[in-house]
Formats: sequence, C-alpha cells, structure tokens
Amino acid sequence: MTQTSVARIGILTASDRASQGVYEDLSGKAIEQVLTEFLASKWEKVYRLIPDDRPTIERTLKELCDEEGCALVVTTGGTGPARRDVTPEATEAVCEKMMPGFGEQMRAVSLKVVPTAILSRQTAGIRGKTLIINLPGKPSAIRDCLEAVFPAIPYCLDLLEGPFLQGSDTAPKVFRPKAK
Amino acid sequence: MTQTSVARIGILTASDRASQGVYEDLSGKAIEQVLTEFLASKWEKVYRLIPDDRPTIERTLKELCDEEGCALVVTTGGTGPARRDVTPEATEAVCEKMMPGFGEQMRAVSLKVVPTAILSRQTAGIRGKTLIINLPGKPSAIRDCLEAVFPAIPYCLDLLEGPFLQGSDTAPKVFRPKAK
Amino acid sequence: MTQTSVARIGILTASDRASQGVYEDLSGKAIEQVLTEFLASKWEKVYRLIPDDRPTIERTLKELCDEEGCALVVTTGGTGPARRDVTPEATEAVCEKMMPGFGEQMRAVSLKVVPTAILSRQTAGIRGKTLIINLPGKPSAIRDCLEAVFPAIPYCLDLLEGPFLQGSDTAPKVFRPKAK
Repeated sequence: MTQTSVARIGILTASDRASQGVYEDLSGKAIEQVLTEFLASKWEKVYRLIPDDRPTIERTLKELCDEEGCALVVTTGGTGPARRDVTPEATEAVCEKMMPGFGEQMRAVSLKVVPTAILSRQTAGIRGKTLIINLPGKPSAIRDCLEAVFPAIPYCLDLLEGPFLQGSDTAPKVFRPKAK
Repeated sequence: MTQTSVARIGILTASDRASQGVYEDLSGKAIEQVLTEFLASKWEKVYRLIPDDRPTIERTLKELCDEEGCALVVTTGGTGPARRDVTPEATEAVCEKMMPGFGEQMRAVSLKVVPTAILSRQTAGIRGKTLIINLPGKPSAIRDCLEAVFPAIPYCLDLLEGPFLQGSDTAPKVFRPKAK
Repeated sequence: MTQTSVARIGILTASDRASQGVYEDLSGKAIEQVLTEFLASKWEKVYRLIPDDRPTIERTLKELCDEEGCALVVTTGGTGPARRDVTPEATEAVCEKMMPGFGEQMRAVSLKVVPTAILSRQTAGIRGKTLIINLPGKPSAIRDCLEAVFPAIPYCLDLLEGPFLQGSDTAPKVFRPKAK
C-alpha cells in the first residue's frame, strides 16, 4: 500500500467574486499553506478558481478526480445558505459515497468559535479513488477544519488505494489503525 | 440588507390528535412563547395546525413559504420514528437545500437531557428565501432546541435576504459575522 | 404496548473474507455477546453472514425485516470508505426513514477513541416495524457504539409497536420517556 508517487491534491475555490477578480482568492491560498505545513510527503497542487455555478463545480470536480488523478480534492466556498451556495449539492452529485463524519466534525469544531457554524453545509464524499472535502470559505475556519480532519485523511487515502501521505512534525498527528 | 419590515414567521404543528381537538396544541403555543421572548424586532405569526399527513404537511409548508411569505417556518411534531412521523421527509421534499447543522446541534443539546434524543429525526432546510426548521414535539425540548439554534437564525435570514431579526436582552446572543 | 413475545434480532455481518471462511466472524459474535449481556428480556438471534455485495445486503435486510420478523437488525462491516464498503447505501435503499442521530452519536463516541472514526459512514433507519442499525466492524468499537445507543433502542421499538425490551442490571440504563 505504501506508494512513493507524488500525491496530486486538487484545490478548488468556488467564488463568484474571486473568479471575476473582484478580490484575491485568499481561501485557496490558505488551503495550500496549511497543506504545505501539514504534509511531509511530496504533493503537488492542481488549482482551480471558478464561479459558484453548480454545473461548473460538478464538471471541475469530475475533471480533478477523473482526468487530473487527484487523490484528494479540497474545496472552499459555496457551503452557506445563500442562493448561490451550491458546493455541497455539486459534491453530492458527483460522489458515489458520502462521508457524513467530516461535515459533522467540522461543524462541531467551528461551533466552538462561532454559533453560526451550524449554517455551514459542508460535506465530504468519494468519487472513484478520490476523497472530496468541502472546507469553509473563511481562511481562519479553513485552518481549524483541516486541523480537525487531517489525522484521518491519510488512512482514508490508503483505503482508497491512493498515495501514502505522511504528516509533518508540526501537523496534527496522523492515525493509521493496525490492520485487522 | 437591514429591512424594517415585520418578519412573518410560520408556526406549523403536525399532530393527528391536536388537529382533531383531542388535546390542546401546547407545542405550537410553546414556540410562540419562546419566539416572543427571544425576538426584540417586530414579527407576526402565521399559524397552522394539521394532521401528520405527508402531502398536507408539504402543501402547508409550500403555502407558508410561497404564499404567506414567511421568512422562517418552525415546525413541531412528527420527527420521531413512528409510522405517522413524516415531518422531516415532508421538509426535505419541499426544500432545495438541507441544513444538517441544525439537526446535529439540536440532537446534541437534547442528548444532554435524554438518551432518546437520538431518535429525533429533526432537520432544517431552505425553500426559496425561507428557512424551515423542525423542532421536537415536547414543549420543554422546544425551548432547549430553539435556545441552541437561535443565535444563528438572524444571520441565516440575512443571507437569504430576509427581514432583519433582532434578539431581545434575555435571548441567547445573536451572532452576525463581520462581512468578508 | 407491553408485549411478552420473544424479540427476534437480526445480526448481519457483511464481509467478503469472513463469508469466504478466510477468517472467523468475530464481529457478529461480538454483537451477540454484547446483546446477551445487555438484554434481560428474551430474544433470539437470526444470523446472516454475507459478502460485501450491495444487492445481497439489500435482499438479506429485507428478508430479516419482512420474512423473519426481526424487530431490530444490527449490521457489522462495510461502513468504511473502501470500494467494497456499501452497507450504508444498502441500508438507506431498504429503509423508509433514516435515523441520523444514531450515526452521529456512534461517530462522536468512537471519535474519543480514534480520529479515524470520522471515516465511518454508519447510519440507521426504519423499514416497516424494524429498526436497522449499522455498527462498525471492529469488535471493541462494536461494544462502544452499542453501549452508546442501547438506552434509546427499547423505546424506539415501543414506538414501532415492537416487542418490549428490558435492559439487564449491567446494561447502560434504558430510558423510556413518560407518555405525553
């Protein structure tokens, strides 16, 4: 199961305004920074910045999974209750399996910071051999949420027969259960 | 985004027995009392008492959202595992988006009181510009659950371009994140 | 509502390897042991050991509910993210109602033991008068999860007009709310 290949990780920012250049995509940047800090094993990013449009999000997720061969795709943006927030629906539409534990834990962690965390509709799921995780839009919340779920991500990729991720010394400790 | 219009709030009780007059609808009354206590801004109730019948619940939810123009609809009843408990299914059927954080938090809060809280299937979702929230049937649990989710409701309605709700001095503190 | 009939409880192990005899079904055995310890009222097990094949799981669940008349069906295996893990999907496909509180609580409890608990996709639901609960595959996790949800199971079966379960002295205390 130990593979030495470089892990490809998709970073997908869904944001009408950032994709139009109204402001900089600080959220996508925050994801890259946190992953760089947390991962000791080699990885390369596959980055996409697109509007909050459901067909576009679905098409881009499929491309990152099926064509770009990403083992992990992390999204930011579009998880709130507003009309243009459709990232969870797009994620569910392209996944064969949903992983409710990610959303539950991310909301539980964010809830310690702000009571409006219950408005976040973040989910996670699996398409083929790719784990897709929705993160919140706010850079500080991105760090909190990635910190909370990071320990389980490498083992999840093992189970999906993906690349072997290793955590850095400063990352939240990666956990791999002993084989049965 | 600040609107001074009166917020219309739907209170929907689904109960075979209360709707037949077998007993009084104490649950709907409890919701009204708690909202009266928690809201400082003006609101008016749009009340419906109907049987635990899925088509009737769906039709009434649509009416409260689309015709009565409620910014918020709060239901009580029909969230358990029994055969006639179908409120969550009716809610999901009329919503475009689900808000899983509400159910998670309400169950977590109720679980501190009774272990049977895990049997509650409460959910929440959005139809158009209306937030629909399922509350439990028991008046004391209604208060616990509303108390837990109230701080996030006004900001949710802001994001849905609804009326500007203000909390009273004795309400759980309303939270509105700073704009990005 | 008090029935003195013997409760039939289905124990369904979904495991490619155990069903091929590669190893013993310790998970199914663990469920039986824990239930024997927790239940004071009479029950009899209806046991099935099948591969991780979605149509087979669905067919077996239907058989345990509709033909064998189980009041409760407890599954083990197939709740992870791997390609052959399809028990939650099979469960959802045969249920009329989902019970999200079970999965939430089991993950919360398991999360105190291992951070990879968020990878578990366990769910629960109702088919006719039968409560179906997915448990994890690991025997120690089975005990932790059953311990966490056991107090709510007898009352759930009451609401489904099923047999009256009684907890043993050493079981986590069964809770039955007073009637309204």
